[in-house]
Amino acid sequence: MKTSAKLTEYDDLERRYADIRDLENAMSILGWDQEVTMPAGGAELRAQTLATLAGVVHERTTEPGLVKLVDRLHRRRADLTPRQRRGLELARRKVHKAAALPERLAREMALAESRGLEQWRRARARGDFQLFTPALSHMVDLKREAAELTAARSGGRKGGRLYDALLDDFEPGATVATIDPLLTRLKEFTVPLVRKVVDSGVKVNLKPLVGRFDVEAQRSFSRDVALAMGIDLERGRMDLSTHPFCGGVGPDDVRMTSRFDKHDLRGGLFGVIHEAGHGLYEQGLNPKRAREPLGGAISMAIHESQSRLWENMVGRSRPFWKSWLPRLRRQHKQLKGVTLDAMWEAANEVSPSLIRVEADELTYNLHIVLRYEIERDLVEGAIAVRDLPQRWNEGMHDLLGVTPPDDGQGVLQDIHWAMGLFGYFPTYSLGNLYAAQFMQTARRELRGLDRRIEKGDLLTLREWLADKIHRHDQVYSADALVKRVTGRPLDTEAFERHISAKVAAIYGKPARGRAPARTRRAAR
Amino acid sequence: MKTSAKLTEYDDLERRYADIRDLENAMSILGWDQEVTMPAGGAELRAQTLATLAGVVHERTTEPGLVKLVDRLHRRRADLTPRQRRGLELARRKVHKAAALPERLAREMALAESRGLEQWRRARARGDFQLFTPALSHMVDLKREAAELTAARSGGRKGGRLYDALLDDFEPGATVATIDPLLTRLKEFTVPLVRKVVDSGVKVNLKPLVGRFDVEAQRSFSRDVALAMGIDLERGRMDLSTHPFCGGVGPDDVRMTSRFDKHDLRGGLFGVIHEAGHGLYEQGLNPKRAREPLGGAISMAIHESQSRLWENMVGRSRPFWKSWLPRLRRQHKQLKGVTLDAMWEAANEVSPSLIRVEADELTYNLHIVLRYEIERDLVEGAIAVRDLPQRWNEGMHDLLGVTPPDDGQGVLQDIHWAMGLFGYFPTYSLGNLYAAQFMQTARRELRGLDRRIEKGDLLTLREWLADKIHRHDQVYSADALVKRVTGRPLDTEAFERHISAKVAAIYGKPARGRAPARTRRAAR
Repeated sequence: MKTSAKLTEYDDLERRYADIRDLENAMSILGWDQEVTMPAGGAELRAQTLATLAGVVHERTTEPGLVKLVDRLHRRRADLTPRQRRGLELARRKVHKAAALPERLAREMALAESRGLEQWRRARARGDFQLFTPALSHMVDLKREAAELTAARSGGRKGGRLYDALLDDFEPGATVATIDPLLTRLKEFTVPLVRKVVDSGVKVNLKPLVGRFDVEAQRSFSRDVALAMGIDLERGRMDLSTHPFCGGVGPDDVRMTSRFDKHDLRGGLFGVIHEAGHGLYEQGLNPKRAREPLGGAISMAIHESQSRLWENMVGRSRPFWKSWLPRLRRQHKQLKGVTLDAMWEAANEVSPSLIRVEADELTYNLHIVLRYEIERDLVEGAIAVRDLPQRWNEGMHDLLGVTPPDDGQGVLQDIHWAMGLFGYFPTYSLGNLYAAQFMQTARRELRGLDRRIEKGDLLTLREWLADKIHRHDQVYSADALVKRVTGRPLDTEAFERHISAKVAAIYGKPARGRAPARTRRAAR
Repeated sequence: MKTSAKLTEYDDLERRYADIRDLENAMSILGWDQEVTMPAGGAELRAQTLATLAGVVHERTTEPGLVKLVDRLHRRRADLTPRQRRGLELARRKVHKAAALPERLAREMALAESRGLEQWRRARARGDFQLFTPALSHMVDLKREAAELTAARSGGRKGGRLYDALLDDFEPGATVATIDPLLTRLKEFTVPLVRKVVDSGVKVNLKPLVGRFDVEAQRSFSRDVALAMGIDLERGRMDLSTHPFCGGVGPDDVRMTSRFDKHDLRGGLFGVIHEAGHGLYEQGLNPKRAREPLGGAISMAIHESQSRLWENMVGRSRPFWKSWLPRLRRQHKQLKGVTLDAMWEAANEVSPSLIRVEADELTYNLHIVLRYEIERDLVEGAIAVRDLPQRWNEGMHDLLGVTPPDDGQGVLQDIHWAMGLFGYFPTYSLGNLYAAQFMQTARRELRGLDRRIEKGDLLTLREWLADKIHRHDQVYSADALVKRVTGRPLDTEAFERHISAKVAAIYGKPARGRAPARTRRAAR
């Protein structure tokens, strides 16, 4: 009798949760449509639609009956199965977090997102930060209010920072205290290494990847790679959009987007591999849990680890190119004679640059560290919105030695703040660290992995990732997962090892010793 | 003080109504996505998502606070402006209709729609009605239950029929008593005229429209026609889908779909003109009213009048072809030498056939009359689901003299019943009648309309329609509108006159007198 009553209460939680998930899924598809298919005229009405849905989601999540239910189940959690306990923990965190915010604020944030997006688009197109100032200031105010309310509610977290409340939306459990050491270490490791690369004087020949490439051929090649990775287009789709992303409502409706540049293979190809990495994670989730509290991805950093692993550890690796270069050469005649070495070096060129999404694997993290420091200070009031362009430009100069010619190529380049995504940026670099640590383990556990990839077999790695990571949904936290899969907490060691080896191979130690070889290749 | 309090109550109604409209708009876009972009794997989750949204819409529409509000405003309606009174009437009808149904039923119907769609697709593809029987029986049960509940609630309507309650969802205010005489008259007029055509022995040469036509060229030509009609693609889009439709959330995000057949120009071109006619109506609505009770189209028959007017009264007219034939000839070399007469006759061929959406302007209405009679009897229990194929086949034989070789080309051909759209079919023929009556008036009021169309000016007609019909949203009922625009209630006279003239011109009176001319053309 008692067990049955408890079961019923947990069932009731699952039923209510499924409704909320349905409404969130509706928002996901409408968000995808907003980016990919919606005509421009639909923007204002869509903003209203999403705001109303956000209001309904908030209302459902904070229904007194549901709040009481999760608290009652929590008091009796000893009677639940471990899976149910974890589901309850996730549901309860969501309910309490939402309950900390008034519905008015939830709707205002949704409205500010859609509208901020439009203002950001205009401002970015004109490279004029001032056009974006009102929307961004409004958004920062809303986010600060939300952070204050959530932080107050979660209370008592020792030494908690305001920014922690936002970070937690994307990386549950992460705090400034836990990520700051990792990002600081990454910065201290990266800055001198970039300096060495610049000072080496080595110029990688980019001709294998930069020139003139038919866009349709690029699309079909990238698609073949995604299919070889295991992407199932019966349960997903691939489209074009200005800002590539992976959306939809996984695991059975996963939507990846990309963009192609006729002058540069890198953005399109590595972009597709990146989004397909996200897509594999989503498609690897358990469909039976799709509407349950346990269902879905663990965190944005774990999500990003999947995209980064495929993009950088696979897509930019020699074994990958050994299998794919011959096909690419057949599609683009100008690549005739391009060697595996030349392609690998071009794919791994390190060069301080302005645009994050086009940055190489090494300098990329410095873009993130700078965004992280700025948005943390912005939310906590240590820097004003109007000072952002200057702060960004100074940071770029200090870390990378480059200076944006205008705000469109500077602080305005990224969509995140326009959409209210504060606390999201650090997950990109955390993702790089997780990716390296997972890949280090995969290489150890899957004997001959590189040889398989050389032969075009990408599915062995995919199956390993699905087995170790994807299929568990949120059964484990990010911390628990990385320990379970790799045997230790997240650190920077695997990433440093991986990138140092690459940089040394291309940019040499000492630099002068290998310079002639580079010059010879560059002159080919 | 008193006025201000009333204003506030009406404002409150508008605010609540706007939320409901937002949620319905979300469903529209998700429905479009389901048809056009969703990968197959997403079907089951989408069914859940739409069912949950339907539940939320139902819950919001029947909130006790809202029910009380519309009733309170109704009691004090003398204090409202005429526009507010009409808005209240529309909102109140919606609220009471929804309140007659339990939320469980609203959700079940939404779920049954999405799932019915999947079953229908499979059954149709295999031409096997039995595969569709369980889903259809379930749907009929739900619809009957809904009709009984709604009819009971609206009570006291003298001589009301069960089917009236469903008809009212698409054609507010229409009943079997009002439409039966029109449809019966149409049947009695059409059957002998079709017989005459068949007996005439005249064979129209279809070569101008049937053969082999590049699909991309078809798409671009159709698109040019839609643009010339005034379709604004900044506020809409045109895509491909198996079952062409016009969806979206007008007026600023209107989505038309079409399909093209490389062997036949008709389906693609006239389909695009048809959907663009719907699209112009949507785009001509008042954007300020988009979320208000007054906003939106009046009824499905008025909507269909706009698509049919453009498709049949314009797209199949001589003046239209005078301006467009030269362009079409330039695109398709095999049309070299095709005369205006030949094209016009091919576009207006009358021939009893199996598929409604491919039927000519005359026989089309017999498909509808048959659907109407069957679905009315089905809902009212006078015929069983299992007997539908036989009933359909017999009806087709009696009315048109054709017999479907399988159910896929018979009773299964249409998507409507799978989606729970009972009471929708009659609006197609009512739309034909409205279209003819509106066009008759437009010709009278717009001097030289045909000469303008000959010169490629389609916008004069579009402006007239926008001014007389589109911009008024639901300010007028369908009955009130047709009297206001044409000076009389809806009848069959204008349509009969229009189609009789066309049929006489092509199929002759007496038939023998013109036969040689036909034969000569046919031999070209």
